[in-house]
Amino acid sequence: MTDFSAEAITAMTLAETVHLVQSGDLDPTAIADAFAGTIAAKEPEVQAFAHFDADRARAEAAGIDRNGPLAGVTLGVKDVIDTADMPTGYGSAAYEGYQPAWDAPIVAIARRLGGIVMGKTVSTEFAMASPNKTRNPHNTAHTPGGSSSGSCAAVAAGMVKVAFGTQTSGSIIRPASYCGVVGYKPSFGTLNRTAVKALSDSLDTIGVITPTVQDAALATAALSENPALAGLDFPRAPRLGLFRTSRWGQAEAATREALDNAAEAARAAGATVVAIDVPEDFEAFYAMHDAVMGWETPRCLAFERNQRADVISPITRTFLDTLARTTRADYEAALGALKDRAALLDRLIGSCDGLLTPAAPGEAPHGLGMTGDPVFNKVWTLLHGPCVTVPAGSGPNGLPVGVQLIGRLGEDAALLGLASFVEAALAAESEIA
Amino acid sequence: MTDFSAEAITAMTLAETVHLVQSGDLDPTAIADAFAGTIAAKEPEVQAFAHFDADRARAEAAGIDRNGPLAGVTLGVKDVIDTADMPTGYGSAAYEGYQPAWDAPIVAIARRLGGIVMGKTVSTEFAMASPNKTRNPHNTAHTPGGSSSGSCAAVAAGMVKVAFGTQTSGSIIRPASYCGVVGYKPSFGTLNRTAVKALSDSLDTIGVITPTVQDAALATAALSENPALAGLDFPRAPRLGLFRTSRWGQAEAATREALDNAAEAARAAGATVVAIDVPEDFEAFYAMHDAVMGWETPRCLAFERNQRADVISPITRTFLDTLARTTRADYEAALGALKDRAALLDRLIGSCDGLLTPAAPGEAPHGLGMTGDPVFNKVWTLLHGPCVTVPAGSGPNGLPVGVQLIGRLGEDAALLGLASFVEAALAAESEIA
Repeated sequence: MTDFSAEAITAMTLAETVHLVQSGDLDPTAIADAFAGTIAAKEPEVQAFAHFDADRARAEAAGIDRNGPLAGVTLGVKDVIDTADMPTGYGSAAYEGYQPAWDAPIVAIARRLGGIVMGKTVSTEFAMASPNKTRNPHNTAHTPGGSSSGSCAAVAAGMVKVAFGTQTSGSIIRPASYCGVVGYKPSFGTLNRTAVKALSDSLDTIGVITPTVQDAALATAALSENPALAGLDFPRAPRLGLFRTSRWGQAEAATREALDNAAEAARAAGATVVAIDVPEDFEAFYAMHDAVMGWETPRCLAFERNQRADVISPITRTFLDTLARTTRADYEAALGALKDRAALLDRLIGSCDGLLTPAAPGEAPHGLGMTGDPVFNKVWTLLHGPCVTVPAGSGPNGLPVGVQLIGRLGEDAALLGLASFVEAALAAESEIA
Repeated sequence: MTDFSAEAITAMTLAETVHLVQSGDLDPTAIADAFAGTIAAKEPEVQAFAHFDADRARAEAAGIDRNGPLAGVTLGVKDVIDTADMPTGYGSAAYEGYQPAWDAPIVAIARRLGGIVMGKTVSTEFAMASPNKTRNPHNTAHTPGGSSSGSCAAVAAGMVKVAFGTQTSGSIIRPASYCGVVGYKPSFGTLNRTAVKALSDSLDTIGVITPTVQDAALATAALSENPALAGLDFPRAPRLGLFRTSRWGQAEAATREALDNAAEAARAAGATVVAIDVPEDFEAFYAMHDAVMGWETPRCLAFERNQRADVISPITRTFLDTLARTTRADYEAALGALKDRAALLDRLIGSCDGLLTPAAPGEAPHGLGMTGDPVFNKVWTLLHGPCVTVPAGSGPNGLPVGVQLIGRLGEDAALLGLASFVEAALAAESEIA
C-alpha cells in the first residue's frame, strides 16, 4: 500500500485509480476519504448533493470488489435514480425522504463493478425545468444547468470522478457544458434505465458526466459491458461537419467562439472541418420532440399530476399543462416520421465522421431561477444517437462553454474517439496559446 | 337509481356498466359490492388476489368520476404494477408487503377515467417462470398459466371486469387462453408501462384481460386515449392467414382442433382462410427473443440477482442464470435484425388481414408447479405487433383453449375488429352446434 495525498487521489484519472486499487497500492477507503474531503470543503457553496453521508460512503468503499473494472471509482447518482440505501427524492417535495426498496440496475451494476457510490446528486424536479439548490462551481451566482445539476456540479468541483445523469431534452449535455466537464449521452438503450423516474419512454437516456472523454469512455464501457467503447480510436484525419442547426440565431457569441475554437484546433490537429448546410426540414425535428415529450411526459407523471398537484412546484405544473396540449395525431405523426432514426442521423452526418454543433446557447446564465435552454440538445436526444460535450472556451463572465459532437446511432465508440480527438486538439491549442 | 342484482351487475358488459353509471342508474358502490361478493365466494379456491380489501374497494367506488369513460369498471391490477394505496410485492418474497409511493401511470389513468381498482392480482415472481398460488378457475388442479396468473383467473371467475397483465414472452396471451378469457397485448408502446417491474425494455408490454373483445377494445381505447380502438370494424369478408409457426410440433390436439374450429367458424361467417407457409428463417425469431430477453432481463434484475439472491426463488435464480449466458454479440445481432419490425410483420402477414395462430400448446397443464410454455407467444411479443386471444374450444380435461390473432404493428383497431369477427363467428358456430 502506497501513501497518496488526498490531492493526488482526487486528481487521478479513472484508469489510474482502478489500476492502483486493483494492484493493491491504493486503499478504497482512502479514496472515499479524499473525495469526502473535497465534498466537505465545497458542498456548502456548491450544494451538489441531495444526500451525502461520509461514513456510509467510507463503509461502502471498504467493501468493494477491488478487482472490478471500476474498482475505487467514486460515483455520484442523480436523485431520480433509485438507491436501496439512500433516500431518493426525484428532486420533488412530493417525495422528500422517500426510500426505494432497490438499487436501479445502473447502480447495482456500478457497485458490482467496484464503484463507490458517494451520494445522491441534486436533480431538478422530476428531471424537468423547476430548478433546485445547486450552484455552478465556477461562479455560484450562476446556474449549473439542469436537470443533472448536481451531477455536473459535483464532477466540476472534483467531488466525484463519475456522475450519472439522465437526458430527455438536454439534461446531460447542457449542464456539462455550463460546468466545464465532459457529458456523454450514449445511444438510446446503451445503459439500463430501469428504476429511474420516467418522463418519456421514447426519449429518456442515462449517461455519464466525467472530467475527461477517456473517463467517460472507460466508465461506460464497463457499465454497458461493451469493451469496444474504451478504445478511443478515430481516423487519423477525421472529417467533422460543422452543423449550426436551424436555431443558430440563439447561439451567443461565446458559443460561436467555442465552435470556431474547436474547429480551428481540430484543423490544426489534422481534421477536415466542413460547414454542413442545415436541411430545410430540420425545424420539423423540434416539433417532433415537442410532440413526443408532450404526449408521453404528462402520462408518465399521471399520478403526480392527478394526486400530488398541490405538492409539486408551480413551474412543473405549468410545464406539464403546456406539454399536455399535445394531440395524439401530432404524437403519432412524430413517431411515424421517426421510424428509422439511424437513417435520419446518417442523412445529417453525410460523409463526415461526426457533427460539431453547439452544446448550449452560451455560458451558464446568471441566477438560479432557471437552468437554461436545451435548444441545442433536443433534436439529438430525439434521434437517439450518441452525443458528447467537451469544454472549448469560456464566456463573458469567464464561465466554461462546451461544444457538442454527434455520432451515428449505435456508433458510440467512433464518437468517443472523435470527441477524444477534439479534446486533445483543444488541449494542444491552449498549450500553444 | 335502479335496483340491479349482484348477478345482473357482474354479468354486464363494460359498455352497459359505464352507460348505467353515467346515467345515474347504477351506483358504483353496488358494483364494488357485487364483485366483492364474487371474490368472497371464489377467492378461497381460485386465489387470484395478492391484495384485496372490500372496504377499500367500496370506498374507492364511492369516489369515482361517474362521468368517466370507464365509470364503474372494476379492475384487477397485476402485482408487478405499482399502487400507492396497496402493497405491491412483484410476486416475490423479496418484496412482500412493499408499499410504493405512487400509482403507476396506467393505474392513475384508469382511476381518473372512473375505474374501480378492486385489488392486486397475483403474479409469478417478477413476471417470470416461478409460479405463485393462483389456480385455474375451470379446474383448480390446473395452472391458470402465467405470469399474469391472477389477472386471467380473476376475469375468468368474474371477480373483475378488466385486469391488467404484462407480457415479455407470453404472459398475457397464454394464461388468457388457459383461463378461457380474452387477452389483448396491444402494439408495443400503446399503454404506458412506467412503474411496472421491468424485465426487458425492448419487450415489456402492458395489456388487458377481459371477458370479450369488445370489453378489451373499449378499455384500451379509453386507457390509451385512442377512440379508434373502440370501433371494432373489419372487412366484410376478412382474409385470415392460418400460421402454424415453426413449432407446430408442440401444438397438442386440443390446440389443433381449436384452430380448425376457429378457421371453420370464420369461413362460415364469410372469411377466407388460407394456410400460410412458415418462412424458412422463422426459427431465427426464437433465437432473437432469447437473445434480447437474455441480455436485458438479468440486467433489469441486477439488484435482485446481486443483493437478494438468498430471498428469490430457486426457479427465478436458475432462469436468470440461464438467460445471463447470452452474449452481447447475439444481443446486438438480434437488435440489428429487428430494426424494422413493422416490415417483418408485414412480410409474415402478407396479403391477409391478420394471422390465426396458436395461443398456447394446449389446455392448461395439470398441477401448479409450472405455468406452461410461451412457445406460441414469444415471436409476436418480439415483433411488437398486436395480439389477441379468444376462446375457441376445449381440451381433453374440458379446460378452455384459445386461438391467437396477430395484426400489423400499430394497426390495433383492425386486429381488434378481426378478433371480434372471429369471436362472433365462434359464438354463431356453437349456437348451431
